[in-house]
Amino acid sequence: MSGYRIACIPGDGIGVEVTGEARQVLDRAAERHGFRLRWTEFDWSCERYTRTGRMMPEDGLERLAEHDAILLGAVGFPGVPDHVSLWGLLIPIRRAFDQYVNLRPVRLLPGLVSPLAGREAADLDMVIVRENSEGEYSRIGGRHNPGTPDEFVVQQSVFTRRGVHRIIRYAFELARERGGAVCSATKSNGLVHSMPFWDEVFAEVAAGYPDIPHEQCHVDALAARMVLRPDRVDVVVASNLFGDILSDLAAAVVGGLGTAPSANVNPERRHPSMFEAVHGSAPDIAGRGLANPVAQILTAAMMLDHLGEHAAGAAVRDAVDAVLRDGTVRTPDIGGRATTGELGKAIRDAV
Amino acid sequence: MSGYRIACIPGDGIGVEVTGEARQVLDRAAERHGFRLRWTEFDWSCERYTRTGRMMPEDGLERLAEHDAILLGAVGFPGVPDHVSLWGLLIPIRRAFDQYVNLRPVRLLPGLVSPLAGREAADLDMVIVRENSEGEYSRIGGRHNPGTPDEFVVQQSVFTRRGVHRIIRYAFELARERGGAVCSATKSNGLVHSMPFWDEVFAEVAAGYPDIPHEQCHVDALAARMVLRPDRVDVVVASNLFGDILSDLAAAVVGGLGTAPSANVNPERRHPSMFEAVHGSAPDIAGRGLANPVAQILTAAMMLDHLGEHAAGAAVRDAVDAVLRDGTVRTPDIGGRATTGELGKAIRDAV
Ligand SMILES: CC(C)[C@H](C(=O)O)[C@@H](O)C(=O)O
Ligand SMILES: CC(C)[C@H](C(=O)O)[C@@H](O)C(=O)O
Repeated sequence: MSGYRIACIPGDGIGVEVTGEARQVLDRAAERHGFRLRWTEFDWSCERYTRTGRMMPEDGLERLAEHDAILLGAVGFPGVPDHVSLWGLLIPIRRAFDQYVNLRPVRLLPGLVSPLAGREAADLDMVIVRENSEGEYSRIGGRHNPGTPDEFVVQQSVFTRRGVHRIIRYAFELARERGGAVCSATKSNGLVHSMPFWDEVFAEVAAGYPDIPHEQCHVDALAARMVLRPDRVDVVVASNLFGDILSDLAAAVVGGLGTAPSANVNPERRHPSMFEAVHGSAPDIAGRGLANPVAQILTAAMMLDHLGEHAAGAAVRDAVDAVLRDGTVRTPDIGGRATTGELGKAIRDAV
Repeated sequence: MSGYRIACIPGDGIGVEVTGEARQVLDRAAERHGFRLRWTEFDWSCERYTRTGRMMPEDGLERLAEHDAILLGAVGFPGVPDHVSLWGLLIPIRRAFDQYVNLRPVRLLPGLVSPLAGREAADLDMVIVRENSEGEYSRIGGRHNPGTPDEFVVQQSVFTRRGVHRIIRYAFELARERGGAVCSATKSNGLVHSMPFWDEVFAEVAAGYPDIPHEQCHVDALAARMVLRPDRVDVVVASNLFGDILSDLAAAVVGGLGTAPSANVNPERRHPSMFEAVHGSAPDIAGRGLANPVAQILTAAMMLDHLGEHAAGAAVRDAVDAVLRDGTVRTPDIGGRATTGELGKAIRDAV
């Protein structure tokens, strides 16, 4: 029986709740499909930070490296600045393991209703391919004249040819697989160094895919299009920042963050990939059974696909679809009264 | 009879068409309200660039400086790179005249339907206060190792205390006037220099307005909120880039860019302010009478307000509302068959 070593980092807030459900669903799927998941749980979190001054131990990355994949809940906690929690855990993992693709598929799930009038599942099926290793998320920068009226701050974005090329290539390959089209989101009229460079590399890569329809969009216009013509959006490739904004927006047009999965992928499989839902730790609703576990469960299904267990991944997705289509067990964010645990169990039972 | 000198730059594409209509509406309003508008028309555009190699003449800014306000259509033309057209005209004007506020009110106009299900005018009334003089739109940056596989590009954002402070202050004053609340859009978890600085200044300014509700949002979450809970968005203050994205998105949730006005304001009135709709030159539909002139006409109404002609400004807005409510004359983008000129005339007649 094949087995996989999975590192599980529940993190903070609702991350703990939804990861608990996802883990049980995965175990059930593994059992049904004849493989084993061997879990190592890590308590790395803001809670740990307030105790120890570190989000993860010094050898954290080495310990993760021994695993086939990482399932992460969410990190973030009032009182711990975001830049500590994220740059002390999430972002180092993304970068150390060269998880340069942040894959965010977005579809309207059965039985759910889009906030957009008259839009149905057929109109709402897109994937955001977000660059996950460089770009606007950079630590280069700082303050001049701090504390004075003349204070100013600079922040530098960095885009490498290699980094831009590989993410765009990934998007084209995905579009070919889906039989879809690629839209590249930039802002070359405002950001005159980084974005024209991205456009240039996009044109070069596109030339190698004459069979794939593609276009370059301004990010502002694309945001508007997601609301006005989401049926005309398929695969979106975008920088770290633009991909972040567009994927939250895309999740909103299918009803919210409660169902939006996400994977941080190292396509070459040289390092473990990390699976974490789009949503955050939501301290306002944490610990009360209000969180929707679907996003994390669909995220876990992406992990199964990545491990090569496609039948099990599909079974989890089918179970989610079946439970939502049935509609009797739903969390409050999607119009029901069930708890996190009740919805998790319903999905588990349906696997 | 008081008079105002207005510089008119129709620009390219539909900019020419919609500015023509706006100008006629303004002349009618002036006549009715007892003041005069003295127009100087400038042919500065991409068309001019292809002829002369410059978007505007060397003394362009000096000539504009002699005017009380600037009405601009749109610039942009296939074949002229955006960074030429914009950094050769639009952005130098915004900066030379210290038009540090880009004001973008968004409301659902009478008779129009939001793409969001069940949302009505009462839910959709917001203003984006966009920083317009610094931030992400910067020319600092460049390429390393151009043309090699090791090529990379850096792009620097610059935020000054003075620049951030004044735009946030403006937003709070506006919220006080509207009886509203301020939401500041940042991304401090990803952009660890610029955005925490903005948050810091925001907290400082907010402390001076204990009566105004305010909050700090992540830009990704705010984009989602604009779709999921637009009724919970009032005054948004954001950086140049975030304000750009959020204002296109906000325009989309009220039905599109055809009706979204915008003003580039120098609040101290040391320099002329510039009035240009949110939309661009739309080369795909230019010259065919398809453009909706409403955005530019409402933009022109903002200019009247700025000149102190509030009654005339209100009359123009009322005329737009009346014509749209009536519904018989509409351009295709808002579900009708009228031409740009027919809708412009209907509004003019209603003033
Ligand atoms: C054309 C472009 C530079 C401009 C901007 O981003 O400022 C436009 O999108 C706008 O919103 O006014
Ligand atoms: C928490 C934050 C740093 C993160 C990001 O922007 O990458 C989150 O918003 C996400 O989308 O994964």
